[in-house]
Amino acid sequence: MAMGFHADEIRQLIKKGNFVELTELLKDSHPVDIAELFNELDPQEYLCVFKRLEFSTARDVLEELDPEKITFILTNIKLQYAALLIREMSSDDVADYLGMLPENIRQNFLYLLKNQDQKDIRTLLSYPETSAGGRMTTDFIAFPKDMKAEEALNKLAELAPDAEMIYYVYVVDHKGKLLGVVSLRDLVLSAPHTPLGGIMNTDVKKVLASQDQEEVTRLMEKYGFLALPVVDEEGVLLGIVTVDDVMDVVEEEATEDILKMVGTEEEIDPERSSPWYRARRRLPWILVALFGEIISGNVIKNFSEALQALVALSFFIPLLMDMGGNVGTQSAAIVVRGLATGEVNPEALWKNLLRETGVGVVLGLINGAMVAVIAYIWQGMPALGLVVGISMVLNLTIAALLGTFIPLMWNKLGRDPAVTSGPFVTTLLDIIGLFVYFSTALWILKL
Amino acid sequence: MAMGFHADEIRQLIKKGNFVELTELLKDSHPVDIAELFNELDPQEYLCVFKRLEFSTARDVLEELDPEKITFILTNIKLQYAALLIREMSSDDVADYLGMLPENIRQNFLYLLKNQDQKDIRTLLSYPETSAGGRMTTDFIAFPKDMKAEEALNKLAELAPDAEMIYYVYVVDHKGKLLGVVSLRDLVLSAPHTPLGGIMNTDVKKVLASQDQEEVTRLMEKYGFLALPVVDEEGVLLGIVTVDDVMDVVEEEATEDILKMVGTEEEIDPERSSPWYRARRRLPWILVALFGEIISGNVIKNFSEALQALVALSFFIPLLMDMGGNVGTQSAAIVVRGLATGEVNPEALWKNLLRETGVGVVLGLINGAMVAVIAYIWQGMPALGLVVGISMVLNLTIAALLGTFIPLMWNKLGRDPAVTSGPFVTTLLDIIGLFVYFSTALWILKL
Repeated sequence: MAMGFHADEIRQLIKKGNFVELTELLKDSHPVDIAELFNELDPQEYLCVFKRLEFSTARDVLEELDPEKITFILTNIKLQYAALLIREMSSDDVADYLGMLPENIRQNFLYLLKNQDQKDIRTLLSYPETSAGGRMTTDFIAFPKDMKAEEALNKLAELAPDAEMIYYVYVVDHKGKLLGVVSLRDLVLSAPHTPLGGIMNTDVKKVLASQDQEEVTRLMEKYGFLALPVVDEEGVLLGIVTVDDVMDVVEEEATEDILKMVGTEEEIDPERSSPWYRARRRLPWILVALFGEIISGNVIKNFSEALQALVALSFFIPLLMDMGGNVGTQSAAIVVRGLATGEVNPEALWKNLLRETGVGVVLGLINGAMVAVIAYIWQGMPALGLVVGISMVLNLTIAALLGTFIPLMWNKLGRDPAVTSGPFVTTLLDIIGLFVYFSTALWILKL
Repeated sequence: MAMGFHADEIRQLIKKGNFVELTELLKDSHPVDIAELFNELDPQEYLCVFKRLEFSTARDVLEELDPEKITFILTNIKLQYAALLIREMSSDDVADYLGMLPENIRQNFLYLLKNQDQKDIRTLLSYPETSAGGRMTTDFIAFPKDMKAEEALNKLAELAPDAEMIYYVYVVDHKGKLLGVVSLRDLVLSAPHTPLGGIMNTDVKKVLASQDQEEVTRLMEKYGFLALPVVDEEGVLLGIVTVDDVMDVVEEEATEDILKMVGTEEEIDPERSSPWYRARRRLPWILVALFGEIISGNVIKNFSEALQALVALSFFIPLLMDMGGNVGTQSAAIVVRGLATGEVNPEALWKNLLRETGVGVVLGLINGAMVAVIAYIWQGMPALGLVVGISMVLNLTIAALLGTFIPLMWNKLGRDPAVTSGPFVTTLLDIIGLFVYFSTALWILKL
């Protein structure tokens, strides 16, 4: 039920020069919708629309646009207005934007900012993009602890247009050290003359600027905060990360996990559609699998006498390979996701291994019994049924065990468990699975 | 840097009867931390701690606990206090809790609520858990449009303790129909005598109670809202979904997607660790794969004369099967995730197919050339190299094509694309891949 725009309608209004109606149409629209509209318009068209926006809407729209559009707009409007806009944009958005520009153009824009803002932006640009420091904005509100609630509310009304999050007021000492937090809710509810020190909550959850964004996400999800303060080693408040930025992080991290699990880091970005570029992102794990499967082929080669003696052995190769891969990938996905959400405890190695291996045994017994019967009926050889059944039990047990062990181990080594859980696990299980299958065949069928 | 408790320390204080220090320790603690502490204490211990909590903290802690603990606490404190607590809890948390109780116990608790609250809870319980209605709370704030800003602020201060989200005030007509929204930010910034109708934003994004929670997530992420109103078919405001609930949804949906992609809906819940239970959740797709791979085996069987004529053909079965599966799964994961985040447009079927198939062709050419050379060197047969190379190009192209097509098609049929993208795609590709391989072998080697 979200209302958008029809680009055609807007285009008509521009062509007819009907700017009164255009302004009216834009007046109550959400900046995100306007930014989306810009994607469908030509530069001259969206420039024309942009010029009709109220100041605060114009600023909010800028925060949503991609770097090329921002640059086109800022270089095609009056310099003073551009400076004013960029000064009022949220500092993390400005930093994100400037971070994507070439150094020489960046300098031109930095020059438009006030001294303090320049310093803030430079600080933000200095943190890795995925750290708390890289995600934070410096547009927070901090007051001393002896300020009265009433005064704080008035100050807030003054500062609000410039701050990203006015629902939390941070209380700091004269060195900027974070002492506590007061929610706007508490402020509204307090007697006017209470000092902030009396209503602030001193059990403030916070992160270091150098900590990873996953820690930020974890704390905000756990406590349901709208913003989380970021401090330096001395506890000085540097910035805040707001909940809307964190939601993006949660989504990004989940997508990253999924893509790593299938062995690719291809970006899901419809704009970069060159198949060469995309293929390159997928190639590394594909190549690992390629060489792994040549080893699988070699296993078959080493047992080729058995295979020639009983060609029916080959009919079950796909079955055994695929089932092992499926069970292994399932176990790996459960571990990887469990580690990401905190529901799997990486320390409880044996407990996790035992649990998943138990599942592997159960799946192995059920499937092993079924395929043994099927193989017997299909090929009319009870001994072959036995070989396939036993191999299946062994393979699925090994698959569950390794599918659990490898990502847990990789995680313990401080690496990202997701990258090991797709092609790597499958390929390894193929090699082991074929070896187990043919060894069982030699043993039982005495080929 | 989040401060927790040491359960041992708390236990010592209880044992010594040092309740002054205990109360002091709990005073400034976050309810989430206290709830976490309860997990490590015995019922009698956490009951003792609970009784020392301030009312509002006690209520917030209850909202975080699991049903058994809530029931134990509510049945072991004074009835009036229990009634007061449950009345002040957020309506969605109460509904979640009551929804998990057996019908007869639920009635006992519902009876503690006020009439209006009883009605609210019954309404909430009537929506599916994963719909907007199932996720919403009825503790929102709504005012008429002629109310003045100052009066609204005063009312807000009065209502705040009971409302889950005081940062948005909704403006409704006399029938409860949603007209607009005013943020607390705007309220604080407005002249005291402005009517809400004059400052409200009328472009309110909203969802129907029957819509899926994914739509709620999508809108809140897109616009960065802290809460989203939920309405009925007539536009009457029924409740709001708050951002902290949505963050959980994002995480849940991502986990669900990943697990479905590997063909399981196993819960990552360390408490339910029976291997039988877990195996049952994984079995359905494993069985589909099992029967699919018997078809694969049949393909090999149909070509068994060729295989007996040239046993070296079997050495490349694992290679061709696995590579097709990998590329197909990658394409499927990219589509599934892209559909979830909105970066893949489900309508642009041909564009998506073309793009991914292009990647498949590139990967096929690179890998096909490599394996052709490897097969030639390894087996000393140029013709076999050609067979393997050509099959690889065809297989990876088909893999990318089907890996993209199947989830897109499934999505178009209104089903969840994630379920088709793991075992199903892999198994289908195995069957096709083996057929392509042996057909190519017959054609080129004339076996």
